[in-house]
Amino acid sequence: MDLQLPRGFRYAGVACGIKKRAGKRDLALIVAEQNATCAGVYTRNQVVAAPVVLCRQRTPGDSLRAVVINSGNANACTGRRGDEDAVEMTRLVARALGRGIDPSQVLVMSTGVIGHYLPMEKIAVGIERAAHQLGDQLADFTAAAEGILTTDKGIKIGCRTLATPGGRITLAGMAKGAGMIGPNMATMLGCILTDARLDPDQAQRLLQAVADVSFNCISVEGHTSTNDTLILMASGASSTSPLRGDAEYQFVEELKELCIELAKQIPADGEGAAHLIEVAVAGAPTDEQAREVARTVASSNLVKTAIYGNDPNWGRIVSAAGYAPVAIDPRKLTLRLNGVELFRGGEPVPFDAAMVSQSMRENAETRVELQVGNGPGKGWHWSSDLTVEYVRFNSEYTT
Amino acid sequence: MDLQLPRGFRYAGVACGIKKRAGKRDLALIVAEQNATCAGVYTRNQVVAAPVVLCRQRTPGDSLRAVVINSGNANACTGRRGDEDAVEMTRLVARALGRGIDPSQVLVMSTGVIGHYLPMEKIAVGIERAAHQLGDQLADFTAAAEGILTTDKGIKIGCRTLATPGGRITLAGMAKGAGMIGPNMATMLGCILTDARLDPDQAQRLLQAVADVSFNCISVEGHTSTNDTLILMASGASSTSPLRGDAEYQFVEELKELCIELAKQIPADGEGAAHLIEVAVAGAPTDEQAREVARTVASSNLVKTAIYGNDPNWGRIVSAAGYAPVAIDPRKLTLRLNGVELFRGGEPVPFDAAMVSQSMRENAETRVELQVGNGPGKGWHWSSDLTVEYVRFNSEYTT
Repeated sequence: MDLQLPRGFRYAGVACGIKKRAGKRDLALIVAEQNATCAGVYTRNQVVAAPVVLCRQRTPGDSLRAVVINSGNANACTGRRGDEDAVEMTRLVARALGRGIDPSQVLVMSTGVIGHYLPMEKIAVGIERAAHQLGDQLADFTAAAEGILTTDKGIKIGCRTLATPGGRITLAGMAKGAGMIGPNMATMLGCILTDARLDPDQAQRLLQAVADVSFNCISVEGHTSTNDTLILMASGASSTSPLRGDAEYQFVEELKELCIELAKQIPADGEGAAHLIEVAVAGAPTDEQAREVARTVASSNLVKTAIYGNDPNWGRIVSAAGYAPVAIDPRKLTLRLNGVELFRGGEPVPFDAAMVSQSMRENAETRVELQVGNGPGKGWHWSSDLTVEYVRFNSEYTT
Repeated sequence: MDLQLPRGFRYAGVACGIKKRAGKRDLALIVAEQNATCAGVYTRNQVVAAPVVLCRQRTPGDSLRAVVINSGNANACTGRRGDEDAVEMTRLVARALGRGIDPSQVLVMSTGVIGHYLPMEKIAVGIERAAHQLGDQLADFTAAAEGILTTDKGIKIGCRTLATPGGRITLAGMAKGAGMIGPNMATMLGCILTDARLDPDQAQRLLQAVADVSFNCISVEGHTSTNDTLILMASGASSTSPLRGDAEYQFVEELKELCIELAKQIPADGEGAAHLIEVAVAGAPTDEQAREVARTVASSNLVKTAIYGNDPNWGRIVSAAGYAPVAIDPRKLTLRLNGVELFRGGEPVPFDAAMVSQSMRENAETRVELQVGNGPGKGWHWSSDLTVEYVRFNSEYTT
């Protein structure tokens, strides 16, 4: 992948023994060279991990300097000691970085097992080590992207560049997540970095808008986690504010495309997944309602098991659309599966089931297109199929 | 089981070739000797099968005479022809029964595969045969209870009797359902029969009230079906109206207990299920909100796979409660699993994980008790665990 990195950031990813397997990276550090603008979008779960409480208080903001992320332990449901540990992580980062950085300029993310206290000695060693390994090369960026993973099979990264009258702007992002996935981000962590110049309110508004059509449109099993965090960090190193006229539009589009690209990598790598499922809904009254129908269909265990079995079982899809919390007109329902029409205006359409099944077997992505009426609303949702491997993986004794 | 049947009904269950496996019962007929009061509660899916449309128009009513139920084909998503077929079934029943019964006095239920037209010749033969086999013995009742099954492993029946100042009242019920289960009844069919004397509005009010705390509190995979139907049919043959003072209370309690007994049999027999999961929630603002929290926890695939693995993974339970659409206070959350406290007031409690795991392994039912605050609201939800067998079963190519 030809990956351009935005100016003004340095990265490190190290192993410090939080994860059981020795040598596995489990701590990442991202540092802005100057004060950076930072926005955040967080889980909607009412049970939130300590680092989420901390980050919510510090974003949006205009003088952030670092994000520290550990994997292997979520620091969730850990009470007051968990809150203190999250604050202590910011102190450790500030001390390791020096240069007058204050702990209040540091954000924290954690992901992993719930209900265990953080191994703070290991984390202190890891932060110290990461601070010494910071670099601005692609290898540094991918090491950080590796340090945030849990059950993911591989790193999830992407980038975008755009030319504006004021100069080139670059965006790069990393994400993690494979299980306990939303919607509304679930156990998903993401960092989007850009060298654009943004003020905190702009950054927050943009990030919320793109999250709603990207990271909030994915699920693996629909279990909203305690730790979801998506951060946008703008270094301003390009000295270019993209937020004027055409350039603004272009920046938002690139940000959205990058978030969608990263978001789709999560269900594609869903625990045990054999297919990425894309459900696209059109004809709803509003975009939000279209997304709601798409989410309902993409979250149905019966739809997910049928797709695992390469079975064009359209009755499960149509009936799932029917129980979405959005008024639809069943007589206007039309369904295409991998481009083939199976149902039109409330009536079955004869089709070559063997051929559709084969196209499901041969493609890693299954595309479900639903027309639910004549409204202008469009939306989508991505999920993974439900496989024997998913159940095996998640029923292994982990407590 | 010592099963008393209410006076005033006759039953039959026959095989007529709707199901692929020869000789498997797939049609049931229940006939009231006199005009009976009838109430109904139906799926909340917007895509509804033809028999649901028909039944909704005819209940509540005071002069119903018969219910015909076929399994093996849901007559759902079958357009206008499906509507005509459902009406034709009522004509066939009226003709087969004779004695001046009008087709408008007949109700229809169907369950099975979606999107196929009913094999009406087979159904005509089945109805004729059932009409000739009607009887009031336990064997007739159980034959009917068998005729309504699809992927169920066995019949689901129950009964209750109560003494009232006006004489004895008997209630008996049959249900089916193992997959595509709710909440809100999903592919569940149920018939409750009583010899009490009820008027239609009373019957409807009672049935809705008990459905909300029984059949609407179960799920297997949470996929609300197109065909759910629960009917209460009161023959009045006991000449006793239970609806006065203590007797009314007692009747409602027995009706509720019968419905809960039948409802729990559904997730206990959930496709591939290894455990029945009972989630009991207390301390919510209202009963309805308590049920909503219970439903959210009991529906989580992560909770369901953990229970399959006999894993007391309380983080998954607590985080599921946190994303329920009900405001809870995480600092007041307390959790017991099979009677053992694992979490109290937002903090983990040390416990013997091996011992709790063993109790999960040894019991077919796993009991989750959650205290979510200090409110008066109590509620429950029953579901089945998510197993490798469930996924295998539902990913087999069936279209």
